[in-house]
Amino acid sequence: MPETPIPGQPQLQPTADHGVASTRVEQVMRDIRQRIEGRSLCAGKRLPSIRAQAEALGVARSTVVDAYARLVAEGVIESRPGSGFYVGRQLTPFSVAEVQPGMAPQSDPVWVTRQSLLADAASLKPGCGWLPETWMPEQDIRRALRTLSRRALAPLTGYGTPQGSPQLRQLLSHRLAERGVKAAPAQLMLTESGTQAVDLLCRFLLQPGDTVLVDDPCYFSFQAMLRAHRAEVVSVPYTPQGPDLVALAQCLAQHRPRLYLTNAALHNPTGASLSLEVAHQVLVLAAQHELTIIEDDVFADFEHHPAPRLAALDGLQRVVYVGSFSKTLSASVRVGHIATRADWISQLVDLKLATAFESGHFSAELLHTLLAGGTYQRHMNGLRARLADAMGLTIERLQRLGIQPWHRPQAGMFLWCRLPDGVDAADLSQRALLQHRMVLAPGNAFSLSQSAGSFMRFNAAQCLDPAIGRALGALLA
Amino acid sequence: MPETPIPGQPQLQPTADHGVASTRVEQVMRDIRQRIEGRSLCAGKRLPSIRAQAEALGVARSTVVDAYARLVAEGVIESRPGSGFYVGRQLTPFSVAEVQPGMAPQSDPVWVTRQSLLADAASLKPGCGWLPETWMPEQDIRRALRTLSRRALAPLTGYGTPQGSPQLRQLLSHRLAERGVKAAPAQLMLTESGTQAVDLLCRFLLQPGDTVLVDDPCYFSFQAMLRAHRAEVVSVPYTPQGPDLVALAQCLAQHRPRLYLTNAALHNPTGASLSLEVAHQVLVLAAQHELTIIEDDVFADFEHHPAPRLAALDGLQRVVYVGSFSKTLSASVRVGHIATRADWISQLVDLKLATAFESGHFSAELLHTLLAGGTYQRHMNGLRARLADAMGLTIERLQRLGIQPWHRPQAGMFLWCRLPDGVDAADLSQRALLQHRMVLAPGNAFSLSQSAGSFMRFNAAQCLDPAIGRALGALLA
Repeated sequence: MPETPIPGQPQLQPTADHGVASTRVEQVMRDIRQRIEGRSLCAGKRLPSIRAQAEALGVARSTVVDAYARLVAEGVIESRPGSGFYVGRQLTPFSVAEVQPGMAPQSDPVWVTRQSLLADAASLKPGCGWLPETWMPEQDIRRALRTLSRRALAPLTGYGTPQGSPQLRQLLSHRLAERGVKAAPAQLMLTESGTQAVDLLCRFLLQPGDTVLVDDPCYFSFQAMLRAHRAEVVSVPYTPQGPDLVALAQCLAQHRPRLYLTNAALHNPTGASLSLEVAHQVLVLAAQHELTIIEDDVFADFEHHPAPRLAALDGLQRVVYVGSFSKTLSASVRVGHIATRADWISQLVDLKLATAFESGHFSAELLHTLLAGGTYQRHMNGLRARLADAMGLTIERLQRLGIQPWHRPQAGMFLWCRLPDGVDAADLSQRALLQHRMVLAPGNAFSLSQSAGSFMRFNAAQCLDPAIGRALGALLA
Repeated sequence: MPETPIPGQPQLQPTADHGVASTRVEQVMRDIRQRIEGRSLCAGKRLPSIRAQAEALGVARSTVVDAYARLVAEGVIESRPGSGFYVGRQLTPFSVAEVQPGMAPQSDPVWVTRQSLLADAASLKPGCGWLPETWMPEQDIRRALRTLSRRALAPLTGYGTPQGSPQLRQLLSHRLAERGVKAAPAQLMLTESGTQAVDLLCRFLLQPGDTVLVDDPCYFSFQAMLRAHRAEVVSVPYTPQGPDLVALAQCLAQHRPRLYLTNAALHNPTGASLSLEVAHQVLVLAAQHELTIIEDDVFADFEHHPAPRLAALDGLQRVVYVGSFSKTLSASVRVGHIATRADWISQLVDLKLATAFESGHFSAELLHTLLAGGTYQRHMNGLRARLADAMGLTIERLQRLGIQPWHRPQAGMFLWCRLPDGVDAADLSQRALLQHRMVLAPGNAFSLSQSAGSFMRFNAAQCLDPAIGRALGALLA
């Protein structure tokens, strides 16, 4: 690689240990490129001076000089003599992947999802975020499809109403009331999916640069999504009763986040649920600090008995509620929903029309058919029992391998576990994929603070194949 | 309304003409509120001084003093004595509606969509952006649903692959080749819809504050969507052969937009298509000014003979291509697709996973069933002939009312027309809705420059009911 002299900068001698220096230069380059792709450095913005950058990254100034020179040669940044270095105008598409130098690729928030979706049927997926297809009500869906294919006024070709099927909203309103959330059909809006619902709410509630609070650990896609919204993300540790209240109070005072994005019941990845006391305190703190909360409740139907919902205590004043059936009914035919203040619905509908137009009209009808006929309720009764058995068995098998549950969830599929001493979750995940075609979910993919390197999320429903225990045993040996 | 004294500001006497002054105060307040909701004024940002604001809006300083005082009382802005007024930290959700004081609500880009979706079956919808449901292949979809309900490996419950069904991408790749766009299946990604595809690409390619070019007139949802991306939008006039090249060159030099969002064939709302010469010149200019282009080709299948595609000439280097079947097959079971450079696909897939997770797996299978069996091609042959007849008849009827086509489209459903002298399209649309439950599409909803006040978009397929001619005649009399 030729040395490119920088105008107005003293040209430095190559260092003796050229190999190491070159690696450091590439790390600095990678770091800057990622900040440009992630929009923390925008087009036309001035880069830190060479001295400031060297101090910030703990590298020699000559390393920064080399890195800047090469980025100038690539057209990524521009040198303006007498003024400094600026991000170039060349288009750099946005990237959600946020793997820092030195971070394991398995800690990239999108890694687990991508691997799980790409895994073929023969792959083992104990880290997967959804149920095996054989656990889903395929026959019920086949029957519902035939019913719809014959129904006179089935919504097969046209657009639906902007807010989404009134009948389905009516039915969802009743279901929400059962877990204490009072939302009239007029306070509900249907979306393409739970993910799209959260994304739409982030667009609605956030400005670029706003600070958002998440749990540590939290669902990894929250991190990737918030990055796409150019939010600053902070986190507080999650306990078996909910967020750590002392840390929460400190964080709210220090960072003044606008939004808290969380699962209140059957939290992903820990499987924990809010206690009533913590739920109340979270809302008291939220009121003190003008915090809006998105309560993503996509695992609600796995519960045997409903845990307290923030949305129920709060009456949907500062809590916005999100639900979906992708985890329990079908991930192919998806419908999400948002319950919120009545005066926000019209703006939310407009935002949906502008960015997604209408949402799954056919899916909504299919869901309504399954919910109204009682089919879904029967399916869920069976599913809950089956999951409880799987959870018991999985805990037993993992414990035999020295893998300890951090908490025993009251329901659901997720089990957050501590690995035996000295075992690194990212390393184990990488070896599992290469040696056993097995997709694991390493702790740091869920941890903003990267403090969960010895934790792993398991999906009890995906852990029943004895080959998983054998593979884990071999990897841990 | 009590007068609230502002600390550090002289308290002004109420003006004599209190009614008019109070209206002006409300206009200033509304203007500031909209800029906060639209994020052109961000939390914590300083507002213009009272003098500057008064000059900018052409109102008396006392009006601005009153408006600021009331906004302080509402908590929307904060007064910092000795420093000025600042946008408050209170959360103001984002709004895509962008009706300026004095602008007709019918010019709000979301108005036509909202009214069209809310209209019941009995309403007349000559301004609607889609075909009547009776023109869509309902029986074909019913049959396809029954086929899928019986197919052994139908994707009814699980997630699909991140990039979307390989079989469908293979088939789409062949179809694109027929109109000269060379895209291997690996260069295609499926999305929930064409709208979601464009939205995802905006996220991928834009930073907040980037300038984006659209046609004038253009599809109104582009304006609303770009607002949601916090883009600055500029426009160039559209001619029957494509964008005005002189205006385009000037605009590129002056505003340096990063992105051009357009329909190349059967442009919405004008029905015009790019000529080969203009297509070539657009790409030459784009290369000179490092412009990326999104070619939204959702009306492609209406064409009798394919017009030149920017993506075909350019080989998908700086043009990203978007397609969908929502306008021709079903708006209830939607699938969109993006064709782009191979090296952008993986980042786009990650962005889709982070913000929407997986896209309509079931819809993709249904679409594949209809495309692979030849059903769709048969449907489109009939549809094109039917639309050509409807277009001829509609032009004849409108001309009798003194409504003149700006251009005779070679195909498709849209007809862009000039109203008789002195008739205002927004006013006509408002009266049509109130007096005849008829949804029209007034020109300025499509025009960034608000220069299309005497134009109207008609949908030939929605214009066949003679009641429309009668209602228009009565309104114009």
